[in-house]
Amino acid sequence: MPNQLLSDRDVEFLLYEVAHADKLCELPQFADHSRETFELFLTSARKLARGVLWPAYKPMDEAPPRLEAGQVLVHPVMREIWPRLAELGITCATRPYAVGGQQLPHTVGMLASGYLMAANAAAFGYAGLTAGAAHLIEAFGDERLKRDVMPRLYSGEWAGTMALTEPQAGSSLADVRTRARPAGDHYLLDGNKVFISGGDQDVTANVVHLVLARIEGAPAGIKGVSLFCVPKRRLEGSDNDCTAAGVFHKMGWKGLPSIALNFGERGDCRGWLVGQPHQGISYMFQMMNEARLMVGMNAVATASAAYHEAVEYARTRLQGRALSQRDPSSPQVPIIEHADVRRMLLRQKAIVEGGLCLLVTTARYADLGDTRSLLLLDLLTPIAKSFPAEFGFESNTLSLQVHGGYGYTSEYLPEAWLRDQKLNSLHEGTTGIHGMDLLGRKVVQQNGAALLGLSEEIAIDVAKAGGSEGAALQQAVERVGTLTMALAASGDRDKFMLHSADYLTLFSIVVIAWQWLRMTNAAAGKQGDFHDGKRQAARYWFATELPRVEHLAALCESGEASYAEMRPDWF
Amino acid sequence: MPNQLLSDRDVEFLLYEVAHADKLCELPQFADHSRETFELFLTSARKLARGVLWPAYKPMDEAPPRLEAGQVLVHPVMREIWPRLAELGITCATRPYAVGGQQLPHTVGMLASGYLMAANAAAFGYAGLTAGAAHLIEAFGDERLKRDVMPRLYSGEWAGTMALTEPQAGSSLADVRTRARPAGDHYLLDGNKVFISGGDQDVTANVVHLVLARIEGAPAGIKGVSLFCVPKRRLEGSDNDCTAAGVFHKMGWKGLPSIALNFGERGDCRGWLVGQPHQGISYMFQMMNEARLMVGMNAVATASAAYHEAVEYARTRLQGRALSQRDPSSPQVPIIEHADVRRMLLRQKAIVEGGLCLLVTTARYADLGDTRSLLLLDLLTPIAKSFPAEFGFESNTLSLQVHGGYGYTSEYLPEAWLRDQKLNSLHEGTTGIHGMDLLGRKVVQQNGAALLGLSEEIAIDVAKAGGSEGAALQQAVERVGTLTMALAASGDRDKFMLHSADYLTLFSIVVIAWQWLRMTNAAAGKQGDFHDGKRQAARYWFATELPRVEHLAALCESGEASYAEMRPDWF
Repeated sequence: MPNQLLSDRDVEFLLYEVAHADKLCELPQFADHSRETFELFLTSARKLARGVLWPAYKPMDEAPPRLEAGQVLVHPVMREIWPRLAELGITCATRPYAVGGQQLPHTVGMLASGYLMAANAAAFGYAGLTAGAAHLIEAFGDERLKRDVMPRLYSGEWAGTMALTEPQAGSSLADVRTRARPAGDHYLLDGNKVFISGGDQDVTANVVHLVLARIEGAPAGIKGVSLFCVPKRRLEGSDNDCTAAGVFHKMGWKGLPSIALNFGERGDCRGWLVGQPHQGISYMFQMMNEARLMVGMNAVATASAAYHEAVEYARTRLQGRALSQRDPSSPQVPIIEHADVRRMLLRQKAIVEGGLCLLVTTARYADLGDTRSLLLLDLLTPIAKSFPAEFGFESNTLSLQVHGGYGYTSEYLPEAWLRDQKLNSLHEGTTGIHGMDLLGRKVVQQNGAALLGLSEEIAIDVAKAGGSEGAALQQAVERVGTLTMALAASGDRDKFMLHSADYLTLFSIVVIAWQWLRMTNAAAGKQGDFHDGKRQAARYWFATELPRVEHLAALCESGEASYAEMRPDWF
Repeated sequence: MPNQLLSDRDVEFLLYEVAHADKLCELPQFADHSRETFELFLTSARKLARGVLWPAYKPMDEAPPRLEAGQVLVHPVMREIWPRLAELGITCATRPYAVGGQQLPHTVGMLASGYLMAANAAAFGYAGLTAGAAHLIEAFGDERLKRDVMPRLYSGEWAGTMALTEPQAGSSLADVRTRARPAGDHYLLDGNKVFISGGDQDVTANVVHLVLARIEGAPAGIKGVSLFCVPKRRLEGSDNDCTAAGVFHKMGWKGLPSIALNFGERGDCRGWLVGQPHQGISYMFQMMNEARLMVGMNAVATASAAYHEAVEYARTRLQGRALSQRDPSSPQVPIIEHADVRRMLLRQKAIVEGGLCLLVTTARYADLGDTRSLLLLDLLTPIAKSFPAEFGFESNTLSLQVHGGYGYTSEYLPEAWLRDQKLNSLHEGTTGIHGMDLLGRKVVQQNGAALLGLSEEIAIDVAKAGGSEGAALQQAVERVGTLTMALAASGDRDKFMLHSADYLTLFSIVVIAWQWLRMTNAAAGKQGDFHDGKRQAARYWFATELPRVEHLAALCESGEASYAEMRPDWF
């Protein structure tokens, strides 16, 4: 059976039985839509994913991009894939009709992207970055950029990138050094960027970089960083002194080039200011929720493809016998018969489907768009980004492990997905950054309003569920509440933030338990393998993961300071 | 500063302050040795590791072996490395003088190998496999094999392999199908093996395979499997109808070929029986403790190299500022100043040095060699193999994470070590197999004598330590005892084994806590960065890991059956 990448049945379940996405059509912006239009788009996406992106995955993993005579050459199959992605309209599916979009809910667009990511994360990456660049112009660009650049990005005529990182400015974007000097209607840029995904390629006629840089005389720090639109080729067609200086050799995502870019080596790299001077970081941050949810979706997708591969392998690979079977001439059994293999599969299922449900839950808050929903979106974003990245990596590791020695070879796919997955704990904010974002900002801002809102949302599902799982989740949520208040009351910021990593983990475990409760609520009273599997995975998560919360909470409260007090010379 | 691979100071500490290896010289077999001879050997090994194997690591990772016209070609640097490994005598360092060995304690040989593995696991692999093959002949071979084959392996004139796995017989060696038909002084073999590390190469004049096969008419199952010595070239020099059919493309260990071998395609593959018919598996098992400790050492070494790389990177990489520093024009700080980075480093230190101490502790039991010590060796072997493989993989992941985006590129080394490390949870028994070995065999055999012995050993160190850490460890050991008795008393084998994975994890956490107590005992009253670091890492392990034991023990006892009762159709 071919790998289904994401389970269609699970997507249907999450959309209509858990999240009731059809009800989103009651909102004015989605009034033209219906379950039928959602399904039309999803069907096109999964067809493209399975029929076009998926067969190209291994070839692209095996033949990474190279730089020749200043031009990056990517796998030629991208020239077949790119027009198909553009035709699907994946870059602007959730954007308004006014800019050529389909005005679909994020909830639907996210899942459609999920199929494409599961099939071929690198190939989808070109589209994801282009969408991000176009959206920045749509939100903050002037009329000229919106007229001359944005439509060519959304249509796929050109591709876009996000050019943020510099050698000395990764997690600390405040330290961006690329300079911009006013020169009439444009600026002249001078500097170097690294790790620019899609930073050059031979697929589209132009590549448009959305670049963070400092206007001469700007204040130090993040309040002096501006955003510029810097095309590889200027609108009239001439080259723009923006050159690919090198290709990074990555562990995974091998089909998508990661480029070192030099701006202004000849002193004539022209960029156009996007929005107001010195507002670049705040513009980026306004886009970041979306980008972070996309990373979370990518991590779920990468774990999902590997999970389905492992289930299929475990059903067909014969090895060993039941513990009670003493006859060595009896036939070997499929390894799914071994309880320890089912453990590895069930853990993957709990992570993958719990993560997917969280992405749907979070995207739905973005679609609802009211103040309270946006507060919840904001709170859940660091979890929706980092849980799939971290636990997804474990899930991918288990997929490889289920494949035994074969899993260690590139004759099978799990090792490739494991390599792909590792990026997701690094880009769009490392896991450490998200831990600090959650504890240092999200749960405490507005006197904990977001956390209170979350508790209320969970309480509704707990009330529906009743039973021991509902009670256990309720208790865990209360534990998070008292812990957060205790930490916030301590007054010492360093001590408060000390166990931000543990806090992120325990918060994630609780939020995923909530997703499993939402799913068992939706499955209540329904029979059959699919719903039985949901109940069983929920049972697994509540029995094995939720009890970890108390230990982690105690660590956060304890002021346990082993690494805080560890001196650099002691390593 | 160049990567030190293993810390010399730590090796010295473990050998002489923790394990008192110099006292081993009181045993008759080590009477010729002294701290000086140990140091001579270790110094040679670390020089070879740092000067010769280490510079070849990246080139070998980048240019894996290939098969051309029936011959496997490996990286040419191996032709420089191999004679140096032979010259060091690493293949027979711990073997008796009588067979050309140096009769060194395993405790010392293990650490010497550790340097070589940390420098270049693939390059060391050729020697490790050759040692294993030679040792099998030494232990079970007849006089002719001991005369004609063994010395050529130990001297490095030839190389050896262990040819066990077949496409249908991986974890289940009972299902080996390769056949052997008597033909005078030899047998004619017919069959296929896969994943044969070092199964062919162009470094040595001959490759000798130690092959599991079934003599015609043998009983089914493991009781019908025999061991054969099958050279690539016969003693008189002609080819032996044993051909490399393919090269597996591995995720890591790229310098060491993994080969599919065909025996007897032309009907003339000659093998010589090693020992008695049908005893092959029991011979293999007698060698397995050693092989498994080598895998554990390899996993520690792979994590160690990555840990030292991460510490150095964190000391020199500037990024961000203290949470309290609000001036964006202040200089960026080394990332080791960030508590969350120190968390990732301290966790690596706790895993790497805890694992190394366990390997030393375990190897010392092998050296002592009395009945009780061998029982402890047997008990600890699944932990010494699987703890470094599983926790070491996490440690390698953290090393990559500390490197941020750079860690994802092959311009830096952590991603390569992460790829290498993954093999260690698979070969020489998967982690699942070791969980079953520990719970299903090691802790229950002889009415729990080994577990009792372990408790007594730990009690001695607890008594020395006193204090809260001693008390916490004592309590954890008692918890393991009551848990094990409760499980053994249940009578239902499937239920007993259900949480073997959780049991392995909790047992490992306790055993590593014991190592940290041993190290803090040895550090007691000693000042300075090194010993302070030891105390701090112990504190970390006791605060963050040991409390997990109760949750895992409760899971084992609970009969929690989510994955046991999960049906294949529910995935």
